[in-house]
Amino acid sequence: MKKIINRPEDYVNEMLEGLYVAHPDLITYTNDDLRCLVTARKKPGKVGIATGGGSGHLPLFLGYVGEGMLDGCSVGDVFQSPSAEQMAAVTREIDDGAGVLYIYGNYNGDIFNFDMAAEMVDFEDGIRVESVVAGEDVASAGPSAPGEKNTRRGVAGILFVFKCAGGAAAAMLDLDEVKRVAEKAAANVRTMGVALTPCTVPRVGEPGFSIGEDEMEIGMGIHGEAGIRRGKIEPANQIAEEMLDKIVADLPYQSGDEVAVLINGLGATPLDEQYIVTRQVNKYLEAKGIKVYRYYVGEYATALEMAGVSISLLKLDDELKKYLDAPAKTPFFVS
Amino acid sequence: MKKIINRPEDYVNEMLEGLYVAHPDLITYTNDDLRCLVTARKKPGKVGIATGGGSGHLPLFLGYVGEGMLDGCSVGDVFQSPSAEQMAAVTREIDDGAGVLYIYGNYNGDIFNFDMAAEMVDFEDGIRVESVVAGEDVASAGPSAPGEKNTRRGVAGILFVFKCAGGAAAAMLDLDEVKRVAEKAAANVRTMGVALTPCTVPRVGEPGFSIGEDEMEIGMGIHGEAGIRRGKIEPANQIAEEMLDKIVADLPYQSGDEVAVLINGLGATPLDEQYIVTRQVNKYLEAKGIKVYRYYVGEYATALEMAGVSISLLKLDDELKKYLDAPAKTPFFVS
Repeated sequence: MKKIINRPEDYVNEMLEGLYVAHPDLITYTNDDLRCLVTARKKPGKVGIATGGGSGHLPLFLGYVGEGMLDGCSVGDVFQSPSAEQMAAVTREIDDGAGVLYIYGNYNGDIFNFDMAAEMVDFEDGIRVESVVAGEDVASAGPSAPGEKNTRRGVAGILFVFKCAGGAAAAMLDLDEVKRVAEKAAANVRTMGVALTPCTVPRVGEPGFSIGEDEMEIGMGIHGEAGIRRGKIEPANQIAEEMLDKIVADLPYQSGDEVAVLINGLGATPLDEQYIVTRQVNKYLEAKGIKVYRYYVGEYATALEMAGVSISLLKLDDELKKYLDAPAKTPFFVS
Repeated sequence: MKKIINRPEDYVNEMLEGLYVAHPDLITYTNDDLRCLVTARKKPGKVGIATGGGSGHLPLFLGYVGEGMLDGCSVGDVFQSPSAEQMAAVTREIDDGAGVLYIYGNYNGDIFNFDMAAEMVDFEDGIRVESVVAGEDVASAGPSAPGEKNTRRGVAGILFVFKCAGGAAAAMLDLDEVKRVAEKAAANVRTMGVALTPCTVPRVGEPGFSIGEDEMEIGMGIHGEAGIRRGKIEPANQIAEEMLDKIVADLPYQSGDEVAVLINGLGATPLDEQYIVTRQVNKYLEAKGIKVYRYYVGEYATALEMAGVSISLLKLDDELKKYLDAPAKTPFFVS
């Protein structure tokens, strides 16, 4: 394990201390708990938006708390859910009478704890909470018959849900309306990833899995969950096309649609490679008649030092464009 | 070599095509040459600022072209200088009668070509060019007697020189004044880095050097140039302190000074680790009585997929603060 860290058990708290030191104008914490991160720029009367999840994915999740996006984030250990108590503490701090929307990824631990937190603050504090569970990873799509459970993992595309919901809340829409916008964004985003190398959870000290020196895995999750195909590494253009074929067919995205595109580095992959992928994504979408409204390229949701990229598309309408473009300022997102 | 690329010989041009696709509102190119990158937001009558250098360091160098920072960048192959002709083409495009300032890193190929480009545009076009060579890496400090050559490599700290000079140019200062501000920034910045892993130039196909599984190298350059000490990996706090001891002693930075701090990831090192380093930098500077005006944390100057970080300090006065804080918008820097 080659990392610039101190004791593995201090990893998350020391990372958080560094964040508070670097961004005092944007974020702080509540409940005397470093892991209950909240905005330093609370807007009176606004619907609060909270997320939460395991560490190891920076800038996800906590990096999008600030102004015009999220108001709070409960922070778990690496790849582990924060507790319901931490989520409840964040909720109490960010509620200003208009209620709170939870937006988080589709993982069992997070669902269990966020549901419990919502009950706690409803019962103890009378705070109304609504939830949107983001799950847009095409590789983990399971049964889709009506009423069946969504098995899709929430990955990088949650950025779009955060941004659109944050824009709606900043425009002072009420809780039901902010939830509607978040659900619309969540329903119109799809993601696929590819991984080239594993990553190492600091407390574990060795990689969670291995990939051969000449192999890649299409569809791998951001905790190393199994993908849909492992094979020899292919040229960037072929990799991008395989992912795009699956993404585009899934929603589906069609000729005439307008989309925002997120090309996301998983941790160790240089920006150069992300832009080489961007180039091919652009050619592919042009050929399909799908218009790109805006590109986001960089590390938005990572898996520690995993090498790889993911591609997310968000199908837009005028309302989503408006909230996507609305001003925001957080430690890792400025628009 | 595990990379998401197509043919190694297309690496730089395909990366550039991706950049132009993603950021058409900010950057374009001139001279029918993808590698002659210029701003899409030219401000009439302003001093132009150009840089240039090898690829493989994104966001450096080209990522800081846009508004309020740089106006042009000539782009070389990976770790190789662009040509004097490319530099001259960029210069012609960004000059608007007020002259052009070159700011680039202290590497022989770049010095040779930028000097030749300056002569070409002076002779052929009557454009006045001044140059500031940034070299702030403490690890490569050589002779410092008056008149002796500066052997320091230019590394991540050049970001501060770009930003301060860009702010001065946007404030419509003349060429001599913009040069004076750039020189002041360059004279007050110092950097040290540490590397944990090597990186692979795509055309070469194998790492340029090796580092043992349990080793690090303090002071390594962003092309893998030898550092000042190789040894067993130590805890993050010790690594940060060793680098800070050398940085602070070199300028020197003293109690009562105010500084901007850049914690820079070299490519594969997660943001978490960069913030763990930030935490220790803050403790260290606090103990020394050095006040931090602002932190910048993230990947600002990389070496492909090298794991490691660098720390840069910029000693500030009121003028540098003003230009550091001035608005800027480029693909990789917004303030």
